[in-house]
Amino acid sequence: MAHIDLGADEKTFPGISGLMRYRRETAKPLSELAEVLLRAPNTLPAGERELIAAYVSGRNDCDFCCASHSAFAAAQLDEGYDLVDQVRADLDSAPISAKLRALLRIAGAVQISGREVTSELVDAARAQGATDMEIHDTVLIAAAFCMFNRYVDGLGTFAPPGREAYAESARRIVEHGYGAAIPAE
Amino acid sequence: MAHIDLGADEKTFPGISGLMRYRRETAKPLSELAEVLLRAPNTLPAGERELIAAYVSGRNDCDFCCASHSAFAAAQLDEGYDLVDQVRADLDSAPISAKLRALLRIAGAVQISGREVTSELVDAARAQGATDMEIHDTVLIAAAFCMFNRYVDGLGTFAPPGREAYAESARRIVEHGYGAAIPAE
Repeated sequence: MAHIDLGADEKTFPGISGLMRYRRETAKPLSELAEVLLRAPNTLPAGERELIAAYVSGRNDCDFCCASHSAFAAAQLDEGYDLVDQVRADLDSAPISAKLRALLRIAGAVQISGREVTSELVDAARAQGATDMEIHDTVLIAAAFCMFNRYVDGLGTFAPPGREAYAESARRIVEHGYGAAIPAE
Repeated sequence: MAHIDLGADEKTFPGISGLMRYRRETAKPLSELAEVLLRAPNTLPAGERELIAAYVSGRNDCDFCCASHSAFAAAQLDEGYDLVDQVRADLDSAPISAKLRALLRIAGAVQISGREVTSELVDAARAQGATDMEIHDTVLIAAAFCMFNRYVDGLGTFAPPGREAYAESARRIVEHGYGAAIPAE
């Protein structure tokens, strides 16, 4: 059960959805940040950006964010859940581009601490063709999920088990974006 | 030196200011989030909210954010830097209210992981009069600084040494708010 009374059934509004409904003033910039980082036009495909979010959320043991963004990544990657699972299980051997692997290594460093991001990690990504903006966005996506993960778990919200529980929100996010993530009254 | 070319002198635009100038699309929701959490009307005084931000930033070893928000806290607390220093040096003995101490303990847990926030920590804050909204905002402020700290350090931005370097931004934030934190072109 959530640590505070969110005024709603936690099965109807699990994870961050109950928090966004509880505090709409913060829901607005949070959903705008997710929209810009994960869905706005970008040289990094939306599926790859969601993969970064899922990867960081898994490393932070945040069940709700990891299941959600794994679903959003799977829905936007040709290889679906197979690729998400392989990246989360073993980044070194997953069948992804060298550029995406280098960016995920930066994201993994950010998950520990901003100070873990070395010039070597950044140079390695640049050597595989990553642009400054892609490196910037990777760092900020990883940093943002260190916030979202702590927000969702720090208030003890509910994470539905199983993949099917996240299918509908994946459909809604892919079709309508993160603005639709703020529940109606 | 920053890991990417921010297109500006790092001494003129240190820390997050150079990042906000570089990527205005993300600067907007980030500054709005800071404004709602740290300055909008709240039962927690702005100085206490900035103290939470400074405390978490110190625990994340983020020099720029810790120096900035220590300055913003000092500017809005009657006891100024003395209290900020005491809280950062030893939370248990610092001369603050039992409620603020309990909220800072929650913030310290969030800094490690959302999963570190226990029912006991939340109950202890509630026993000292903390409301659900104050507990919510404490968790989200702490979580947000786990993002801001990683963003600022993950891109290797410059942190000016010394307190005087932060006095002008403290004056600007207290007077004009975080909207003024986005540098003009």
